[in-house]
Amino acid sequence: MIDQTAFFSLSYGLYVIASKDGDRAAGCIANTFQQVTASPLQVSVALHKDNVTTSVIRSSKRFTASCLSREASMELIGTFGFHSSKDLDKFASCIAGSDGAGLPFIAEQACARFSVRVLQEVDLGSHIMFVGEVEEAEKLDAGEPMTYAHYHVVKGGKTPPKASSYIPEAPKAAAPSGETSQPTYAWLCEVCGHMEYADELPDGYVCPVCGVGFKKVEA
Amino acid sequence: MIDQTAFFSLSYGLYVIASKDGDRAAGCIANTFQQVTASPLQVSVALHKDNVTTSVIRSSKRFTASCLSREASMELIGTFGFHSSKDLDKFASCIAGSDGAGLPFIAEQACARFSVRVLQEVDLGSHIMFVGEVEEAEKLDAGEPMTYAHYHVVKGGKTPPKASSYIPEAPKAAAPSGETSQPTYAWLCEVCGHMEYADELPDGYVCPVCGVGFKKVEA
Repeated sequence: MIDQTAFFSLSYGLYVIASKDGDRAAGCIANTFQQVTASPLQVSVALHKDNVTTSVIRSSKRFTASCLSREASMELIGTFGFHSSKDLDKFASCIAGSDGAGLPFIAEQACARFSVRVLQEVDLGSHIMFVGEVEEAEKLDAGEPMTYAHYHVVKGGKTPPKASSYIPEAPKAAAPSGETSQPTYAWLCEVCGHMEYADELPDGYVCPVCGVGFKKVEA
Repeated sequence: MIDQTAFFSLSYGLYVIASKDGDRAAGCIANTFQQVTASPLQVSVALHKDNVTTSVIRSSKRFTASCLSREASMELIGTFGFHSSKDLDKFASCIAGSDGAGLPFIAEQACARFSVRVLQEVDLGSHIMFVGEVEEAEKLDAGEPMTYAHYHVVKGGKTPPKASSYIPEAPKAAAPSGETSQPTYAWLCEVCGHMEYADELPDGYVCPVCGVGFKKVEA
């Protein structure tokens, strides 16, 4: 009745959603930012309730959305998409700008940025949808926007479990009996969440998704 | 403060949203259909309050979303996007399927289709956002999804005034005095809304956007 591959036909962009309340800045990646009305100019975005960014937006009632360009690096996406703002000052590692209300946005590797005042919060269960009015909108450079399809197909990107469009990976088919043995270890990329299954990885092996490193996680 | 060209960086697909209540079927085009939570599988779509489809969804509490493929014809888009279900049986001119609840969907020129039971209505002013749980999802063929950018750039498509992403066209710059005269007539394509400005159009001239006809609309 539900073929999950049907959801791969839905088209999205890729955005850094950020906010700041006092000294507390936070940002994360979302694909659900969209314009919902033309007059007034209203937009919406759905974010997981457990994201630090969500709680900062709920207190500040404001957020920025930076539309990532195709040239955005996997390191930038890894920083904002696969780490928590609780543990990391995400804006320390990128070129950030500041909007009229003092909120950060991504000033490089982005093709447009928006500043939004929140008017409504819609409870979606695991996520909250913020609806708000656009107070600032700026074209940042001539780069093409990164689409979610480009992120997955061309850049080999992954979707983390707290994303609106997360679909659990199907369990790998078991190898025919006696033909190959299961690897002893799984290796988790701490930046982008990609996993490799192998007994060993060569010295200096880097993550094929984001170009960063691996940690051995389980037997 | 607000550069409207920044909104051109946002990425969307193109969907036929349809519903049926008793014998009353309706459908329209929207770019705002998206997945908003993974568990349960919830989606949302924002539709103008004046659309017939919106009122049929409000009474039936169900809708389908058909994800148009790149091969979708401008005639199909013209029929669903630039006409009212009040005046036209839109499903008479296309290959439609019927879901488990008897609602129509687009069975050709679409790469996936979804059936949704509405759980929430969010009032956005001009539009209503419907949030619901997916009850059916099916991949329809191997075609690539039509993106909103492809519709605009490759197919030369237009956005009608009731769309979430409508941006009024900037008034044309006045011709330098005495150099050229303003055309006497505007010609409106009744299928897709494209306008041409000319004193006359040649016999048999077809709309460059959707390939259909023109009507003289104003002096």
